[in-house]
Amino acid sequence: MHILITGAAGMIGRKLSERLIGAGDLNGEPIERLTLLDVVPPTAPAQPACQMHTVGADLSSPGEAAKAVAPRPQAIFHLAGVVSGEAELDFEKGYRVNLDGTRALLEAIRAIGDGYRPKLIYTSSIAVFGAPFPHSIPDDFHLTPLTSYGTQKAIGELLLADYTRRGFCDGVGIRLPSVVVRPGKPNAAASGFFSGIIREPLAGLEASLPVPDTVVHTHASPRAAVGFLIHAAGLARDALGARINLSMPGACCTVAEQIAALRRIAGERVAARIRRDQNPVIAHIVEGWPQRIEARRSRGLGFTAESSFDEIIRIHIDEDRGGSFVA
Amino acid sequence: MHILITGAAGMIGRKLSERLIGAGDLNGEPIERLTLLDVVPPTAPAQPACQMHTVGADLSSPGEAAKAVAPRPQAIFHLAGVVSGEAELDFEKGYRVNLDGTRALLEAIRAIGDGYRPKLIYTSSIAVFGAPFPHSIPDDFHLTPLTSYGTQKAIGELLLADYTRRGFCDGVGIRLPSVVVRPGKPNAAASGFFSGIIREPLAGLEASLPVPDTVVHTHASPRAAVGFLIHAAGLARDALGARINLSMPGACCTVAEQIAALRRIAGERVAARIRRDQNPVIAHIVEGWPQRIEARRSRGLGFTAESSFDEIIRIHIDEDRGGSFVA
Repeated sequence: MHILITGAAGMIGRKLSERLIGAGDLNGEPIERLTLLDVVPPTAPAQPACQMHTVGADLSSPGEAAKAVAPRPQAIFHLAGVVSGEAELDFEKGYRVNLDGTRALLEAIRAIGDGYRPKLIYTSSIAVFGAPFPHSIPDDFHLTPLTSYGTQKAIGELLLADYTRRGFCDGVGIRLPSVVVRPGKPNAAASGFFSGIIREPLAGLEASLPVPDTVVHTHASPRAAVGFLIHAAGLARDALGARINLSMPGACCTVAEQIAALRRIAGERVAARIRRDQNPVIAHIVEGWPQRIEARRSRGLGFTAESSFDEIIRIHIDEDRGGSFVA
Repeated sequence: MHILITGAAGMIGRKLSERLIGAGDLNGEPIERLTLLDVVPPTAPAQPACQMHTVGADLSSPGEAAKAVAPRPQAIFHLAGVVSGEAELDFEKGYRVNLDGTRALLEAIRAIGDGYRPKLIYTSSIAVFGAPFPHSIPDDFHLTPLTSYGTQKAIGELLLADYTRRGFCDGVGIRLPSVVVRPGKPNAAASGFFSGIIREPLAGLEASLPVPDTVVHTHASPRAAVGFLIHAAGLARDALGARINLSMPGACCTVAEQIAALRRIAGERVAARIRRDQNPVIAHIVEGWPQRIEARRSRGLGFTAESSFDEIIRIHIDEDRGGSFVA
């Protein structure tokens, strides 16, 4: 089969590509061709066993989406997008990339017609939810995003559901929880500290914690996130019904529990590298974020995530640090 | 103040214009200028006490939305749109008018900048909800529309909320229940029978009932619908909070109760003009529609509708039939 990944140069995109190339198949179907698309051409992984193409394209530019789907990939992982912070700072860019880009992709698929109906896995986010929340957010809770990013993701979900209902594609929307531990350098995202307080201490560096350690959030590892996308691609149409956008499961815990897990796994010296450094601006942003996600439907459909934050830390040490850390 | 009404030639648009002209003010503020916009120029009501302009324009055509908001109306009632049946039959037209038209209006407002921040009252619909439903649909129920129209309305709500949050406008989204009794000729809408079984018998004509009389639905009169829009225009920004899209109240009843009300008000001979004529296609469509709408928030904010279907029939006889009917 032929698979297209948009946003393939991002963290999840790279881990998804590597996993697919390693497996050689998607839910049992051999992969013959893999196209990696991003605004700058992604680096092709070493020694792929299938045909590889890397493409530099912005789906919101006229004609680019049509070119991307012209070879009729059977499965499309649509990960491309501007992140939360950038979409808030640059209103026009956020709408252009996250809304127009997604709509252009859907329209390009519809324009092919002729029975073409690809599996389309769309990465949404729990940013579609906005405070105030009940104790735990149920599957039928309304979408009242408090950011432009969350708004654009929610619109993408609605479009995906309508294009699927009309038979133009076979869509699944995957609302990712906070994905930690993100490898690499700290970034400016308000959520960055959730990864930072684990990643930096394990690398022997100090990390800053800008919020009280009573903050509750739902987390999944990058490995689990890639697993969600692959599992979604294998879901039978009738298992999903009309409600194709799903909140994913995750390990729900407080920041204090995250730190306790780090202490259990890596010791007191590592955990002591976290510097409490309250930042009212970040604390205020984080207050508006979803805490507990119920995710009953997705669990029932076989989506699985880590059941503890300990597992999430071990996956980071294993996958991104070659099994060791700076004690 | 200057008021712009889009979709002013439609049933609600005409009743809203007449009410505003009759009152001469909007929530106490004198109306100096009223602009009525529709794809074909609306007929100007007789003897307006204010400056009147009628405009023929399609907001989704380049430049039209900018022209419409250039005189900086302080209040905009955005009623323009393609109805449910047409949006389902003509996919492209539905998205162009309902989504692109609404977005063009929002973008034109944002482009003015310079502190311009009009009150923007957007007519949404309970078509944003899709089955299966709980016994009564609460305010925090998710939006999973089962039509392209409902999808476009839900996207409009999300855009309105984000443009409001960013300070570009001061939006309120009004989810109208089924508006009955619609005056005029029967139309092809699947929901047409809700009005038809009242309007036609009162005019001495036979009416067809395509669904079982156990069907439950929430109704409001055109008078109540116009009242919702005017009340929304007067809501203080902080009364509304971040969740600016509201399900409106209505009289919730079965078709049997609608017919019983008609019998009470107009007698057995009139009620006997309803022909039971089951249509499985229409019955199936109607099964997917919302039944009971809780509307706690909107009631709390002072929105009011009829408390019985009897009242709705009396309003129709009074407002559209000059007080009489064919016995």
